[in-house]
Amino acid sequence: MPKIRKVLVANRGEIAIRVMRTCKELGIATVAVYSEADRAALHVRTADQAIFVGPPPSRESYLVQQRILDAAKAAGADAIHPGYGFLSENASFVRACEAAGITFIGPPASAMDAMGEKTRARANMIKAGVPVVPGTTEPIATEAEAREYAQKIGFPIMLKAAGGGGGKGMRRVEGLGDFESAWRSAKSEALNAFGNDAVYIEKYLEKPHHVEIQVFADTHGNVIHLNERECSAQRRHQKVVEETPSPILTPELRSKMGEVAVKAAKAVNYVGAGTVEFLVDVHRNFYFLEMNTRLQVEHPVTEWVTGLDLVALQIKVAEGEKLPLLQAPEPQGHSIEVRVYAEDPSRNFMPSPGKITYLRVPGGPNVRDDSGVFPGYTVPNVYDPMISKLSVWAPTRREAIARAQRALSEYVVKGITTNIRYLRAILAHPEFVEGDYDTGFLGREHTTLQGVEDPKLSEMALLASVVFAHQRDAKRAKTLPGAKAASSSDTGQVSAWRQALRSRRR
Amino acid sequence: MPKIRKVLVANRGEIAIRVMRTCKELGIATVAVYSEADRAALHVRTADQAIFVGPPPSRESYLVQQRILDAAKAAGADAIHPGYGFLSENASFVRACEAAGITFIGPPASAMDAMGEKTRARANMIKAGVPVVPGTTEPIATEAEAREYAQKIGFPIMLKAAGGGGGKGMRRVEGLGDFESAWRSAKSEALNAFGNDAVYIEKYLEKPHHVEIQVFADTHGNVIHLNERECSAQRRHQKVVEETPSPILTPELRSKMGEVAVKAAKAVNYVGAGTVEFLVDVHRNFYFLEMNTRLQVEHPVTEWVTGLDLVALQIKVAEGEKLPLLQAPEPQGHSIEVRVYAEDPSRNFMPSPGKITYLRVPGGPNVRDDSGVFPGYTVPNVYDPMISKLSVWAPTRREAIARAQRALSEYVVKGITTNIRYLRAILAHPEFVEGDYDTGFLGREHTTLQGVEDPKLSEMALLASVVFAHQRDAKRAKTLPGAKAASSSDTGQVSAWRQALRSRRR
Repeated sequence: MPKIRKVLVANRGEIAIRVMRTCKELGIATVAVYSEADRAALHVRTADQAIFVGPPPSRESYLVQQRILDAAKAAGADAIHPGYGFLSENASFVRACEAAGITFIGPPASAMDAMGEKTRARANMIKAGVPVVPGTTEPIATEAEAREYAQKIGFPIMLKAAGGGGGKGMRRVEGLGDFESAWRSAKSEALNAFGNDAVYIEKYLEKPHHVEIQVFADTHGNVIHLNERECSAQRRHQKVVEETPSPILTPELRSKMGEVAVKAAKAVNYVGAGTVEFLVDVHRNFYFLEMNTRLQVEHPVTEWVTGLDLVALQIKVAEGEKLPLLQAPEPQGHSIEVRVYAEDPSRNFMPSPGKITYLRVPGGPNVRDDSGVFPGYTVPNVYDPMISKLSVWAPTRREAIARAQRALSEYVVKGITTNIRYLRAILAHPEFVEGDYDTGFLGREHTTLQGVEDPKLSEMALLASVVFAHQRDAKRAKTLPGAKAASSSDTGQVSAWRQALRSRRR
Repeated sequence: MPKIRKVLVANRGEIAIRVMRTCKELGIATVAVYSEADRAALHVRTADQAIFVGPPPSRESYLVQQRILDAAKAAGADAIHPGYGFLSENASFVRACEAAGITFIGPPASAMDAMGEKTRARANMIKAGVPVVPGTTEPIATEAEAREYAQKIGFPIMLKAAGGGGGKGMRRVEGLGDFESAWRSAKSEALNAFGNDAVYIEKYLEKPHHVEIQVFADTHGNVIHLNERECSAQRRHQKVVEETPSPILTPELRSKMGEVAVKAAKAVNYVGAGTVEFLVDVHRNFYFLEMNTRLQVEHPVTEWVTGLDLVALQIKVAEGEKLPLLQAPEPQGHSIEVRVYAEDPSRNFMPSPGKITYLRVPGGPNVRDDSGVFPGYTVPNVYDPMISKLSVWAPTRREAIARAQRALSEYVVKGITTNIRYLRAILAHPEFVEGDYDTGFLGREHTTLQGVEDPKLSEMALLASVVFAHQRDAKRAKTLPGAKAASSSDTGQVSAWRQALRSRRR
């Protein structure tokens, strides 16, 4: 495969700029595509060349394969980087690029096919010996069969309607005693909701963590993992805060999950950057959830602790080079990313598009801002309202939290409403500080987190400072690169927090 | 020594903010001081509390010891961080802090005394066995004695007037053949200029590099070094670009210079952060130049490659803690810092104070901006016109150069003139790219660097891209953390550059 000299970035916003930054550093020319709504966007100004591809919404511009391919041909681009979202996991687009003789910077279409559809991916993983959440997938005929299966996989279990989702026909069952009534009500509710009373069984995971493994494969058969990212801070399945290392992973579990992720990637002949997502339960069993066959939004935290440039690595692999490392690097220190959105947490996170009249971005040691906006830019109402990914690095987790708080305290965005206070409330929450928050965390603490007012937040921040100050002794012995995250057993400090939070709730 | 709970930062601009950032992360309260000219400055807004200390110039505010001490007492600060410049190397201020029961975050007054005055420092270093630039220091009586001494230290040598500087009475002598005439003309010129024909001898260093070693000492007798910084890119003794590792140091020389720097610090019972500056000649002999008894402007490059927070380490030492490491950490990757000034390179670098009407700061992977300004801020004409220190990290030197160029290409400052184009011209210059630039580099290349116009610069940047693209193969094998800087022997590429430069000069 020849060297890539010109890349069309088939995306917009921060990820388009992220990709172009690496291209610039590698001496590769860049081509932007833009919609009518993005004429003044930063990714257009950042590229060496920009080509118009149609009006919003995306399905009339960024998602129109032929327009993207025509733009690449017109610009003489020899490769396309899809970013994330849009066409990034579209196997037919990969095939179209291939047919047009343009390098698609991503996995082959066959790997996308194998991982794209959830049930097919699940079947492929079972075949490969990758653990999946135990369940029947197919509807189960009789209550007797269901009871037997439930006992086999162990309670609690979920009964789920096969005909549809949204919580209808869904019942959590704690044990055999509850089984009969749950079975009946799930079936009747499913019938009412979907006209179909078919029900299947899935093991219910208590307080699961979303932990994902970054994998990388080259075209020479080398597959490695680059450790994990903890992504359990989710609001309605949307990640809000990510970090690495995961505070719940031991080195043993990390290497075990890493091996399984590599096995998953090998099973589908993967090439390039991918992410294998797992759920980890309270007993630290882990189960395959899905594989994202692209660069992940939260890849910067992995870059911070490995020193690697994942976009450069993607390009290298696309050029046919071998991976420059053959095993997971030891994570160095700790990194946290928060997603800054143009949205109003106090109005149920309603997007708040509009003109950014003033912008001051945080700086100083080990703070990274990946943003697609600038002062004077109008955030459009037709795309994802994320305006920045702020990530930090520090030798230990506690220092990283303090640094993220400090950086967020410097972030000034005027003209639109953002979720910055909400992010600060998450980082200040005892459950987050303790480091054992599951995927239900943000949902459970919704009111607390979303309702925090400025003065209260300052109070929390002050409390945080005190906690951190007290913990300095412990921390400081560990301020060297490569030091492991401090333990989160400072229960005395944390209970002071809980008290503060309780008093705030009154 | 008790824990520090509240720090007064006796400085302004970026360094005041730098110090406050770490204080915030450590849960330490911060107090700013400000002059009349700094009422609206960012360091005032960043601090928890701010106290007015008088009008500009500095000698009526930031340099008035009593006002600073009064402010510290009024605010209840238990420590003062002096930053760099101003009172940072003032031994009498250190004693005044001591007398007032306030911790001075820096070395003891005695160490400042021992290193503060150049000839005393030189004498102390000779006593300690630290190599200094060979010379007589004291005037030399007769030509015969002078010839003998010159032969002893080896040609070329400099004859220098003892009565004054400014190049008067100064002669470079290549060998014995030139000696007599040089001796006569130096003495007569010295007599004319200073009314004093006394002359002394110093060894002339050819193409010297300015390489400095960061040292750190605690109050328990532990002294370590944290490797070097290459600071040879100087304009009139003012550093403009700094980097680490130095492209001219071998691991052996690094450890030898490090040992000598530790010896120098030990000789004066040093405590805290300090920098031992050396000149390194073409034969890689090194000579003590001076010691800066404070935090250095360019400390971020050391932070990048060590993962340490030097301000946090200063505070730790001031609190009486032991250093958390007992030997120099292996430098990880490469870091470059450029100093962004409000000045006009095309008008002989005249300061260009004024209102910043628009500001966009670079972002993305491994880019750090330490700045004291913000959009809408008016850069005053009474202080140093540095508006930002932009630093980057990458696994190798060449990647760091490419990243610094990329970051500078994103820097947008409107309303005032800056030296950003000049900085880009330095980074693009073959001598810099080759990595063997001495302290005469910026002076020699003044016209080339300062005269580069936008289109030409773009051309240079494009050329740089091509060079980097060709070099990617070599680089990529080294993209892991801990990889050493790539060698700078790509003479084929560089000669293409030289040609481009020559053609531009026509």
